[in-house]
Amino acid sequence: MSGFEFDMVVRGGTLATAAEVFEADIGIRDGAIAALGRNLPRGAEEVSAKGMIVTPGGLDPHCHIEELGQDGTAQEESFASGSAAALAGGTTSFICFLPQWKGHSLADSAPGYAARAEQSRADYSFHQIITDPTPEVLQKEVPALVARGIRSLKVFLTYDPLRLTDAEFLDVLATARRLGAFVTVHCENFDAIGWRIGALLKAGLTDPLQHAWSRPPVVEREATHRAIALAELVDQPIQVFHVSCEEAAAEIARGRARGLKVWGETCPQYLTLSHEDLTGPDFAGAKAVCSPALREKAENARVWRRIQDGTLDIVSSDHCGFSFATAKRAAGSSSYGTGAAVQRPDGMPAFNAIPNGVPGIETRLPVLFSEGVSKGRIDLPTFVRLSSANAARLFGLGGRKGSLAPGADADLVLWDPDRETTIAQERLHHAIDYTPWEGFAVKGWPAVTLRRGAVAVREGEVLAPPGTGRFLPRGPYDLAKPTGRVPDGFDAAAVTWA
Amino acid sequence: MSGFEFDMVVRGGTLATAAEVFEADIGIRDGAIAALGRNLPRGAEEVSAKGMIVTPGGLDPHCHIEELGQDGTAQEESFASGSAAALAGGTTSFICFLPQWKGHSLADSAPGYAARAEQSRADYSFHQIITDPTPEVLQKEVPALVARGIRSLKVFLTYDPLRLTDAEFLDVLATARRLGAFVTVHCENFDAIGWRIGALLKAGLTDPLQHAWSRPPVVEREATHRAIALAELVDQPIQVFHVSCEEAAAEIARGRARGLKVWGETCPQYLTLSHEDLTGPDFAGAKAVCSPALREKAENARVWRRIQDGTLDIVSSDHCGFSFATAKRAAGSSSYGTGAAVQRPDGMPAFNAIPNGVPGIETRLPVLFSEGVSKGRIDLPTFVRLSSANAARLFGLGGRKGSLAPGADADLVLWDPDRETTIAQERLHHAIDYTPWEGFAVKGWPAVTLRRGAVAVREGEVLAPPGTGRFLPRGPYDLAKPTGRVPDGFDAAAVTWA
Amino acid sequence: MSGFEFDMVVRGGTLATAAEVFEADIGIRDGAIAALGRNLPRGAEEVSAKGMIVTPGGLDPHCHIEELGQDGTAQEESFASGSAAALAGGTTSFICFLPQWKGHSLADSAPGYAARAEQSRADYSFHQIITDPTPEVLQKEVPALVARGIRSLKVFLTYDPLRLTDAEFLDVLATARRLGAFVTVHCENFDAIGWRIGALLKAGLTDPLQHAWSRPPVVEREATHRAIALAELVDQPIQVFHVSCEEAAAEIARGRARGLKVWGETCPQYLTLSHEDLTGPDFAGAKAVCSPALREKAENARVWRRIQDGTLDIVSSDHCGFSFATAKRAAGSSSYGTGAAVQRPDGMPAFNAIPNGVPGIETRLPVLFSEGVSKGRIDLPTFVRLSSANAARLFGLGGRKGSLAPGADADLVLWDPDRETTIAQERLHHAIDYTPWEGFAVKGWPAVTLRRGAVAVREGEVLAPPGTGRFLPRGPYDLAKPTGRVPDGFDAAAVTWA
Amino acid sequence: MSGFEFDMVVRGGTLATAAEVFEADIGIRDGAIAALGRNLPRGAEEVSAKGMIVTPGGLDPHCHIEELGQDGTAQEESFASGSAAALAGGTTSFICFLPQWKGHSLADSAPGYAARAEQSRADYSFHQIITDPTPEVLQKEVPALVARGIRSLKVFLTYDPLRLTDAEFLDVLATARRLGAFVTVHCENFDAIGWRIGALLKAGLTDPLQHAWSRPPVVEREATHRAIALAELVDQPIQVFHVSCEEAAAEIARGRARGLKVWGETCPQYLTLSHEDLTGPDFAGAKAVCSPALREKAENARVWRRIQDGTLDIVSSDHCGFSFATAKRAAGSSSYGTGAAVQRPDGMPAFNAIPNGVPGIETRLPVLFSEGVSKGRIDLPTFVRLSSANAARLFGLGGRKGSLAPGADADLVLWDPDRETTIAQERLHHAIDYTPWEGFAVKGWPAVTLRRGAVAVREGEVLAPPGTGRFLPRGPYDLAKPTGRVPDGFDAAAVTWA
Repeated sequence: MSGFEFDMVVRGGTLATAAEVFEADIGIRDGAIAALGRNLPRGAEEVSAKGMIVTPGGLDPHCHIEELGQDGTAQEESFASGSAAALAGGTTSFICFLPQWKGHSLADSAPGYAARAEQSRADYSFHQIITDPTPEVLQKEVPALVARGIRSLKVFLTYDPLRLTDAEFLDVLATARRLGAFVTVHCENFDAIGWRIGALLKAGLTDPLQHAWSRPPVVEREATHRAIALAELVDQPIQVFHVSCEEAAAEIARGRARGLKVWGETCPQYLTLSHEDLTGPDFAGAKAVCSPALREKAENARVWRRIQDGTLDIVSSDHCGFSFATAKRAAGSSSYGTGAAVQRPDGMPAFNAIPNGVPGIETRLPVLFSEGVSKGRIDLPTFVRLSSANAARLFGLGGRKGSLAPGADADLVLWDPDRETTIAQERLHHAIDYTPWEGFAVKGWPAVTLRRGAVAVREGEVLAPPGTGRFLPRGPYDLAKPTGRVPDGFDAAAVTWA
Repeated sequence: MSGFEFDMVVRGGTLATAAEVFEADIGIRDGAIAALGRNLPRGAEEVSAKGMIVTPGGLDPHCHIEELGQDGTAQEESFASGSAAALAGGTTSFICFLPQWKGHSLADSAPGYAARAEQSRADYSFHQIITDPTPEVLQKEVPALVARGIRSLKVFLTYDPLRLTDAEFLDVLATARRLGAFVTVHCENFDAIGWRIGALLKAGLTDPLQHAWSRPPVVEREATHRAIALAELVDQPIQVFHVSCEEAAAEIARGRARGLKVWGETCPQYLTLSHEDLTGPDFAGAKAVCSPALREKAENARVWRRIQDGTLDIVSSDHCGFSFATAKRAAGSSSYGTGAAVQRPDGMPAFNAIPNGVPGIETRLPVLFSEGVSKGRIDLPTFVRLSSANAARLFGLGGRKGSLAPGADADLVLWDPDRETTIAQERLHHAIDYTPWEGFAVKGWPAVTLRRGAVAVREGEVLAPPGTGRFLPRGPYDLAKPTGRVPDGFDAAAVTWA
Repeated sequence: MSGFEFDMVVRGGTLATAAEVFEADIGIRDGAIAALGRNLPRGAEEVSAKGMIVTPGGLDPHCHIEELGQDGTAQEESFASGSAAALAGGTTSFICFLPQWKGHSLADSAPGYAARAEQSRADYSFHQIITDPTPEVLQKEVPALVARGIRSLKVFLTYDPLRLTDAEFLDVLATARRLGAFVTVHCENFDAIGWRIGALLKAGLTDPLQHAWSRPPVVEREATHRAIALAELVDQPIQVFHVSCEEAAAEIARGRARGLKVWGETCPQYLTLSHEDLTGPDFAGAKAVCSPALREKAENARVWRRIQDGTLDIVSSDHCGFSFATAKRAAGSSSYGTGAAVQRPDGMPAFNAIPNGVPGIETRLPVLFSEGVSKGRIDLPTFVRLSSANAARLFGLGGRKGSLAPGADADLVLWDPDRETTIAQERLHHAIDYTPWEGFAVKGWPAVTLRRGAVAVREGEVLAPPGTGRFLPRGPYDLAKPTGRVPDGFDAAAVTWA
Repeated sequence: MSGFEFDMVVRGGTLATAAEVFEADIGIRDGAIAALGRNLPRGAEEVSAKGMIVTPGGLDPHCHIEELGQDGTAQEESFASGSAAALAGGTTSFICFLPQWKGHSLADSAPGYAARAEQSRADYSFHQIITDPTPEVLQKEVPALVARGIRSLKVFLTYDPLRLTDAEFLDVLATARRLGAFVTVHCENFDAIGWRIGALLKAGLTDPLQHAWSRPPVVEREATHRAIALAELVDQPIQVFHVSCEEAAAEIARGRARGLKVWGETCPQYLTLSHEDLTGPDFAGAKAVCSPALREKAENARVWRRIQDGTLDIVSSDHCGFSFATAKRAAGSSSYGTGAAVQRPDGMPAFNAIPNGVPGIETRLPVLFSEGVSKGRIDLPTFVRLSSANAARLFGLGGRKGSLAPGADADLVLWDPDRETTIAQERLHHAIDYTPWEGFAVKGWPAVTLRRGAVAVREGEVLAPPGTGRFLPRGPYDLAKPTGRVPDGFDAAAVTWA
């Protein structure tokens, strides 16, 4: 009966999975869930989940951690700090980005990045950003990457120098199709944004709010439709990253109704923040500068509706922190900015030179739980799907993450559904000096986080040391497979390398 | 450690739930799932699931069993035979219909029906059909019904004398809203069908194929849009029964995009059969007469697409068997028929006098597994959702049925995914004398069915005796709750009984 | 050269037709346009149009004049007064309604109505309302009517006792199809409105604003979709009357994209008035009670957009005047009201007993010209199409009305495009005691109206005496013809009388 | 009465304008229509139109005539031959293209082109193609062009080296907006086509049919949506050229429903030809190679439906002739081709080296009249709108062309509506050696064509000598004006030159 000795039993909780809610104890052995059952035998360790809701640990499939710029400097959120924040917010694994420096091979880009990642306290995987899809990269390096278990590629349709041309994007899509890899896309029209920025600067409009004016919804809708159309041509599954508005979401819904494998993700910022957050004294609006930009307030409800109808089925953080003091207010040239540098009288950077991104890896789940579950917009299984299970399926971690089934990693969050609190920077664990949700009231809080069977966070105290997180290699999986339908019956992707 | 003695362990299977697929043993005690785990302790009984896929037992939320006509005669499919067929086809519970005879109270309609149902071998619940929504019925009988755990009402927008007027339908919707009950709807335009029937008969067109001509897709689309609009006005969740075509499904998708709680069901006949099945020698087309009618062949693929995009999320049988020899070919007056009786030279009934409905309670899941899973159109979790889990959620049986979680009833099907066979009437268990899938080749077969922990069927042999099925009462549940949004902020349903 | 002697020449104007704008003189002989040309020979009479825009006289295809209720009383707007108002507002012909009294033949309904119409100062035709489509009516009376040149039928899907069931509506559609007649439809769901009214009254909500609450857009959308679906089934061209909102207009656009012959009309009230007009002191909101009801303010812009994209291509008045003092404030039972009478403390009628309709035959074109042309929302040819030409085509008066081509009746309006004024009841010619546009500022005014070559109005003075208007019989025409496409290739309408 | 002496009277015809059909004589003086009337005084010359339908002369707003390649060679269709063909087919004016050679100023491109155009027998204007929108070009040359009356720009989103980037397209749109000029767009995704071509050639698929495979509908839909989105951002009216399929047309309809000023054109080839025409012995399929490519046969009906619902409102020829013997079969490198040259065993060019375009300036109207009017798909006013009036309005020639109003040029076509004939290359007047409509049966034929009051063609004999056509300068006009709505209220186009 050695099969029934548990290292730990999480006892008496209400379990929520992607599909249902039920009462059971969880028996853990060797870091994995060994059994679910009523009245499980006593474990070597016991954790009480009485009155708690137990969900799979969050999987944040879209965050930027310690990312290395082409100039060699790393973003200030380190793997140690970022993963502490993740765990404290109920997220036990994440997928961040292997950059490709423009003009470099994948191998040459971001040297030592994988080694840095080993400092993570949470489990992690990588999306490989492709900015320079040379034949060498696509035919040699990407297959090698996939063989190492990195099965998802990320492309940008905007940002200089990250963006791909449509031809490059098609090459990436076709490569992914041949390899059974997945493709994620940042959808905004680069040229349109540049044209608006130029005009705004010329008109002397340089405030953070103008960041939103420089990239209105139509710019996102256009690139979303284009990305879907090109993926349709190649017959390659894709996910549209960080959908901010109904116009873009509607394109995804139309694609699905045509039978395409296209998915959409959104982020807490598009569910709760708006133009209003781009204003305020002392350049405070810079804190909310991210792309796609925040929309008018009424858009939040439209994005929620697209969560409810299933069009948007993952909520990630797009954590991409830049401190307010040292980055958002600094008149440096951001690699994400577009257009000429402009001098403002107050010394602050013009909107287009403010680094893009908001920190959110720690607040993602509390905000989603509170605004979603506690306010009755979604039920618990939907919360689990949005926060972990769907990302696990979409990115090939199904069975291991986002699950409470036997065999899954024992990543668990014990939510106190009744705890009411207020988000405050001073209690967060990230390396960034602010949160755009400062003062935001939430109901429901992750009291305890387990990562592979160990208590990683208890009541805000991060117990998991750096270096305890593990890399998550990913094998072939269904959602990444093509539908088999191609225009005129001609599978162009099948021959492009022949 | 008494918690860890199992009456039975289903060992070594690949489990498929609504959300995922994993390897685990299932420990059963007192008819319920007690634990899931790897290497569970030995049970008093052991069932090997080696090489098998184990799903929750099917829940068929839409079938007509031993239904009592207003003339007192019962449909020939009895609870004993129908439930044997259900179990043999992997369906361990079903929801059939309490009729309301026109002009009668609920209490007076179908006397003894609940007692007859006790002969079932499978678990069961009832939808209450409402044909005469008098104040007495709505204000007294329906609340009593709901208190007994019958929380779903069924209305017809077509068929004489079953159909409701829009006013009556609104009253039913408002009543359901107040009671937290759910409403299902047969959506076809009665008057339009009658008008077409009259013209077809006048033109001397009386063959079974004309049944389809008498109720083309536009007739279904109209009623579907109307039902959704009226439910939108009342703010009452509904499900559209047996969606047969893209036109109707598109209305459901539009409703969901408006934020409505509207769901759609389809049936195997709309995924596999077509106009072609309404023709054939010896009046064979009569075998495929059901409503909505079968569509042109190309429609099957469109309905599959709406399964794939999530618009249609339950596949029921709408089992409603009438034997070919005694009913389909008999020139009797069907209570479902519409229009005057017409004499055909061959003595067969005109299309409008052929009883509506096809038998399918036993073939539902094998056809869906084979055409869906084996042919790659859907994955296993989708199969589980379509076949049991979504119906369990939608009708208030979540947690008990459609689940493999601890606490759920141990209703299990062991599927041999590789078995190839051909559907044949001679091996079916229903009381009907034919199947429209005669000769249909399938891959994947339910080898063993357990119902509440007992082997109910093994290799086609039905072991569960009549009377072992149980009535499933249903309490309040989330999906039946209104959204809270009503036109002009005026909640008319809230005052209609005041 | 007798061909070139003119009774009158309208000289020097800028002519606007349905297609274009150009400079020309108009030569008139025998009441018709005889020639258009530059520098036409001098006429017996000369009218200067210098600085004026000359359009075809307005054709108001939807107005209620001296309509006879089943109790024998006539609406207070007589043919003499209503036609004076029409002419003063630039409308030289109109189509009003022959009622059918419930339970009566067409012949017995509204005795003497055609004779009363002979008092009109403007030309006129009739739509025949069908409330009781018995075989006698459809097979004998309607053909006789069509033979007399009354080629359009009007049906109501709401109002007791006017409304038709779907079956009756189908019979009317099929009859029209066989006769090459046209069908217009008032689209609102009767039962839904009744249900809302009942609840509102029960809740003690009885103000004029609640009239709008009793029939929200979804109620109009539902009936619009249904009417289109039934017309699609029969393959009969229809026009949806008085579209008040985007939801309903979108259904028309969807129908057109499916290839259907379906048109939509709107009215000035839906372009300029809103919920706000349903409130105000002294029961003033009653003045704006009409059906469909006025919508929220933002809806005006959406309706304009549907004019701009061509979905709504006629603007009628739906003139249906009831004086404020004697009708709108009178607690009588309106034949249009629905639901039980309710006593208000102030003695005013509850919203559902306020007669439905606003007077607008005189203000229709000035409001449309000002809000449309002067404000740049539409160009002059669009104005002509909306105000006369499209109605002429749709109702079989093409070539005679709505045209400036040789052969057309010399019905002309000389618009002073720069005149700015304010609409005031004291200057209107109708018999109603108020206008909902009191104080409404307009730019552009019909300075002179000619009807068949005679000056009918000059600067507000009506010169055409009663009895000078003529009945306009209508022959077969293209827009009323079916498309030829019917479901399953079966033309049910063709056999229903056989 | 000198005003009433006519140089010519066209007598006794049935006139069809954009709005209506009526009987009248047409009095012509000084090449213009001087009067319309019944029984006009006798003219110096008389033309009988008895039994004829008289329409405005066709305006073909999209044809390539004697276009000069960057290598200095002109397309073989000269102004003399092309205009003879135009007149013979009932087209009295056309708009062809001023090229911009890549890397050249407008002034330097196509030297002598305007002088060559003076050889035309028909009236003509130019669209200016922009391939290199440098500041010099946009800020100096285009304004000068507009001042000369060339108010429409044409851009390509595909073809190397013609295509613009999105940034360049935005600059063109903004320039047009500032100048009140109009923009037309060839919408196909360049990169996607190139990717497909590469794969097809790699797969050894080189037949003319593969031209269609290389650019399926999704490629057109993508670019159509993108063009509309960018025009929406700038708020600039555009027309989408040569729409070939429902997918692209639907994007235009969606844009119009959003309130945009976007129009769509199609061509006879998309209404009558299909994939089948891309096959055949002796490389015959090359004759039908044009872009967008021909679609599957069922698409024709869908395009007709979009004409009927108003989405596509101009039918142009896109005449772009390359002789079969000397160009289509010649393995030369076409400037329109994309991708590497490939050797075929039969010496014929691979599909991507076949020059794109079909000759159609002469057959455009007979095919449209026959398939449209004679077959009952459209009425005569719609024919006039599609063939001349809408193009005249859209391109600033309203009042002068496409009209029968006094003041308009006396460009007239006398159609014999009953004449049945067969299209044959041997009777055509173009310089190309084939027609894709060889053997196509038509009903309705242009018996006589008048151009500015002179008989230009009578019964196939072209009487108008080269050099009698006139250049048509165009001033500001309404349809080219922006709507005034821009995202976030920021009019970027207004500041981009500041």
